[in-house]
Amino acid sequence: MTMSEADDLVLLSVDEVFDLSLRVLEGAGLGRPHAEAVARTLAASQRDECHSHGLHRLPGCVMTVTAEKFARDAEPEVADAAPALVRVDAGYGYSLLAFERGLPLLVEKARRGGVAAMAISNCFHFSALWPEVEALTDQGLAALVMTPSHAWVAPAGGRKGLLGTNPIAFGWPRPGGHPYVFDFATSAVARSDLALHKAAGKPIPEGWGVDGDGNPTTDAATALEGAMLTFGGHKGSALSTMIELMAGALIGERTSLDSMAFDEGLKLAPCHGELVLAFDPVVMSGGDPAEGIVRAEALFAGFAAQGARLPSERRYAARARSLAEGVSISRALHERIVALLP
Amino acid sequence: MTMSEADDLVLLSVDEVFDLSLRVLEGAGLGRPHAEAVARTLAASQRDECHSHGLHRLPGCVMTVTAEKFARDAEPEVADAAPALVRVDAGYGYSLLAFERGLPLLVEKARRGGVAAMAISNCFHFSALWPEVEALTDQGLAALVMTPSHAWVAPAGGRKGLLGTNPIAFGWPRPGGHPYVFDFATSAVARSDLALHKAAGKPIPEGWGVDGDGNPTTDAATALEGAMLTFGGHKGSALSTMIELMAGALIGERTSLDSMAFDEGLKLAPCHGELVLAFDPVVMSGGDPAEGIVRAEALFAGFAAQGARLPSERRYAARARSLAEGVSISRALHERIVALLP
Repeated sequence: MTMSEADDLVLLSVDEVFDLSLRVLEGAGLGRPHAEAVARTLAASQRDECHSHGLHRLPGCVMTVTAEKFARDAEPEVADAAPALVRVDAGYGYSLLAFERGLPLLVEKARRGGVAAMAISNCFHFSALWPEVEALTDQGLAALVMTPSHAWVAPAGGRKGLLGTNPIAFGWPRPGGHPYVFDFATSAVARSDLALHKAAGKPIPEGWGVDGDGNPTTDAATALEGAMLTFGGHKGSALSTMIELMAGALIGERTSLDSMAFDEGLKLAPCHGELVLAFDPVVMSGGDPAEGIVRAEALFAGFAAQGARLPSERRYAARARSLAEGVSISRALHERIVALLP
Repeated sequence: MTMSEADDLVLLSVDEVFDLSLRVLEGAGLGRPHAEAVARTLAASQRDECHSHGLHRLPGCVMTVTAEKFARDAEPEVADAAPALVRVDAGYGYSLLAFERGLPLLVEKARRGGVAAMAISNCFHFSALWPEVEALTDQGLAALVMTPSHAWVAPAGGRKGLLGTNPIAFGWPRPGGHPYVFDFATSAVARSDLALHKAAGKPIPEGWGVDGDGNPTTDAATALEGAMLTFGGHKGSALSTMIELMAGALIGERTSLDSMAFDEGLKLAPCHGELVLAFDPVVMSGGDPAEGIVRAEALFAGFAAQGARLPSERRYAARARSLAEGVSISRALHERIVALLP
């Protein structure tokens, strides 16, 4: 750790972010394998300047970890449930270790079957999905991942929270480069965006939320009390509903409504399920993925030719920068985190 | 067929729509099993007042069917490609018979594996996806279906057609009622919406298209010459790209760019692939789907309680009406179709 020229910033290497996170999480009583999995994800998020899932999340993690509902030493139970299905019961611990423990069997099944699913149940979830997508693209597989969250979002035509912010992420492996990856919430914005606007006394654009009667509002506080909206109108609303059904009902797990009820107002990380689908391009293409790879690369070249950016390009640029130069966090955040150390 | 009170409408039963479509298609030289599959879909679309895929499409079908590139008697080749994968080579015929022929094996694999995929290749495609989704929900399975189309749509931040209108459809079986089904294009609107606005000399809303330099336009003709846009900004653009990769590159098939090149300006139905994913709630839930069904029904009740509509409700209402009372089409359309009879 070094002081940056600006006195209000602290410069850390990515390894230092990992070490600091690990010490805080273990200090809060989180079992070692869980703490390592979470610290890896926090460090990766900070590295990629995906700030909403980086060190900012650590205080919230400590709150979740120390809650009574949370199992700090949960041992994920991996079940070979069917030829194309791995089920992992996270046992009320974090999702990340459950994902890691189920991953080898998921990869094996996808390589054999063409497509395979991993259903994680009873997991607390705080992380972005792209690190999990990248774990699959690293193996040469395409991946589609989704989870519910808490029922803050009204369906199209509605006025009350029913759907979660329900993220969906997808990855496609590219030869000799970063994968094509997107990871977005199906809500118009993140709930924290509303909170930031409320704190700053700034109006929000139309389309972010509605009041309790379903009327459009540009007041952040009113939207936080009413309901958020999905992106993309009735299409985004349909997609968000699909995520409730696929990563909830299909795998016998909580919807965002159920997850919110389970939370009992404690504001912990949501506890629900997660659905991970993995596809092997070798099998799916009928044994010869070469033509598909050429078609995909031609598609990506079409983005570049017209000056359009691929979804994760900024994140990959931040990654290169952070690995070379380290990451800067505000002194205030650093002090807040150091204060969490035992 | 009876004359309606209004002289400019013709009333047909759903069976008459099927018969008429079948005669036209067979008259155009389409092999009997193909003609039956297409006529079934046209009749179902007309029945559900999904007009864009009903009898209006019949003249376009005749054009495609009589084109040199099209195989009127193609026999779909079903391959048991992997434990969780059916591959069907449509042999440059329509997709619908290929779907029907591959369906039993897909269902069997999903019931055994939890999830299974059907990859259809070399198929001409004109139909909505919800009839295929319903074929799977009828078997108690959840379904996710997607296809590319032609490269009319610019990616977010771009200015040239690169992505297709790329429809995605999803279905969830409900006990004792119609399934939850959505089916939408990932473009902001259908290409025909732009054509209708152009014909009527009406401006289009912002967000539908851009001119050749990527500037927003409210002129339909300019957008038709420039590019369409996806729904939902960069999120819709990412989703559309996923469809190119999943229903194109992954299965070794044409992207929308490739499909458009294959068409050589003939304006036939696009010829590409299709990806169908089927999920068995019994297997995916770990053997007990009851809790998931309860959670799903609670979600749907949440829509009704706040006056929000489920995606296919209007279609199901039209279905009931059409089965009871028949369907009305304009005399002009009827005459146009009768003129296609041999």
